[in-house]
Amino acid sequence: MNKEVSPQPLLLEGERVDDLQRRGLKIIQNRSLFCFGTDAVLLAWYAGVKEGGRALDLGTGTGIVPLLMYGRYGRGSYTGLEISARCADMARRSVRMNSLEETITIIHGDIREADRIFPAASFDTVTGNPPYMAADSGIVPKDREIAAARHEILGRLEDFTRAAARALKPGGSFYMVHRPGRLAQIFACLQQDGMEPKRMRFVHPRADKEPSLVLIEAVRGAGAGLTVQAPLILYEADGTPSAAMNEIYGQEAEG
Amino acid sequence: MNKEVSPQPLLLEGERVDDLQRRGLKIIQNRSLFCFGTDAVLLAWYAGVKEGGRALDLGTGTGIVPLLMYGRYGRGSYTGLEISARCADMARRSVRMNSLEETITIIHGDIREADRIFPAASFDTVTGNPPYMAADSGIVPKDREIAAARHEILGRLEDFTRAAARALKPGGSFYMVHRPGRLAQIFACLQQDGMEPKRMRFVHPRADKEPSLVLIEAVRGAGAGLTVQAPLILYEADGTPSAAMNEIYGQEAEG
Repeated sequence: MNKEVSPQPLLLEGERVDDLQRRGLKIIQNRSLFCFGTDAVLLAWYAGVKEGGRALDLGTGTGIVPLLMYGRYGRGSYTGLEISARCADMARRSVRMNSLEETITIIHGDIREADRIFPAASFDTVTGNPPYMAADSGIVPKDREIAAARHEILGRLEDFTRAAARALKPGGSFYMVHRPGRLAQIFACLQQDGMEPKRMRFVHPRADKEPSLVLIEAVRGAGAGLTVQAPLILYEADGTPSAAMNEIYGQEAEG
Repeated sequence: MNKEVSPQPLLLEGERVDDLQRRGLKIIQNRSLFCFGTDAVLLAWYAGVKEGGRALDLGTGTGIVPLLMYGRYGRGSYTGLEISARCADMARRSVRMNSLEETITIIHGDIREADRIFPAASFDTVTGNPPYMAADSGIVPKDREIAAARHEILGRLEDFTRAAARALKPGGSFYMVHRPGRLAQIFACLQQDGMEPKRMRFVHPRADKEPSLVLIEAVRGAGAGLTVQAPLILYEADGTPSAAMNEIYGQEAEG
């Protein structure tokens, strides 16, 4: 009684396939919707997952962070939670295209309901690349899905930290990338939810410039004490990628 | 009926006079008690005081921060609060030696009682170089006065932020120098007391090293939004002072 079903198309109109330069991994993106940037690459590089560990990516978009983390570590089990049906669908098709259905699970859902979607304390690692801008700051794009990736329309900082704290096992790490300007609020949200910032690295476009991003590792239930790491410089004074930048992208490309 | 009084001796046994290389200013120090370090120089350089502004230095020790700030700006009116009678006495004699009695006032008292010593909201600028270590961490020196400068025995972080918030006018700035490892707690204390971190600069011994100090400006009653400035690098890879370091000490030396 096996009925032959015609497979869903892998690519929809306007979509393209990009090579992640690592273990032959590919990702489906749609330039008019959202394409991943340096921040996602940095987050996937900064975040760790232990052997056999379970990782959850909050607001995974097209699944770039789980894909890059699997590409880097070649281990772990990943879940991506995404509120946009279109993005979640693209992410699922990328997983299928890479034959990673056993390794990466994409769930269409709201991080504000993560505590109903996942059992408490069920992940070793949580990652998050929250929208950088407050709901009412700057120019908010008309398209709700595009807007939600950059503005806190569907998930605010405190929604991310609450979801992370609930999903993490005690001692588990929440890795995030955000803007330095939000740092005081980030720390307050983390501590409010019982996660202590333990490691932090500022990302500077150049050595003499202000940082444009900050990478943070917070640990659920940890004691006080933060290591601020040496700055991560992306470009040399002459505009060429720094050794660190080459290493981060090079690691992705080695596979 | 003017009675000639013999002046107090300016120097006690074990004390020495150091030239601050700025406006001919000098400071009395006692190596066996406490000598100022790079952190005080950086704090005095980072902190601002407006024309005619009133500045309070919490835990002023030998008065180094008011002396250097006056040396830098040549304006402002300074008050230093110090719990150690010996340090406060040395600071007062330094003020007298520099003929700055009209400009710098040293008060012997406890920052935990600052709200009884000063009227609320009476300063434009507050500076503080709190002890870096928790009361029970590391090796605590037996001499209580020496210990109190480095360990939170007589004034904890939250005592400094509370005193600063109470003493500052709305919109006034609290400048502090501390260890990066305490940053999460620093932010929490500042926000608890209604001061928002607005500017922050990490101080790195070398460009590729973790920061050893952090300079912070928090503003009483300000809205959210933090500027993390470009790193301040003290030494080049070959061990020579950086241009920034030369500028900071050079400004002191221009006089």
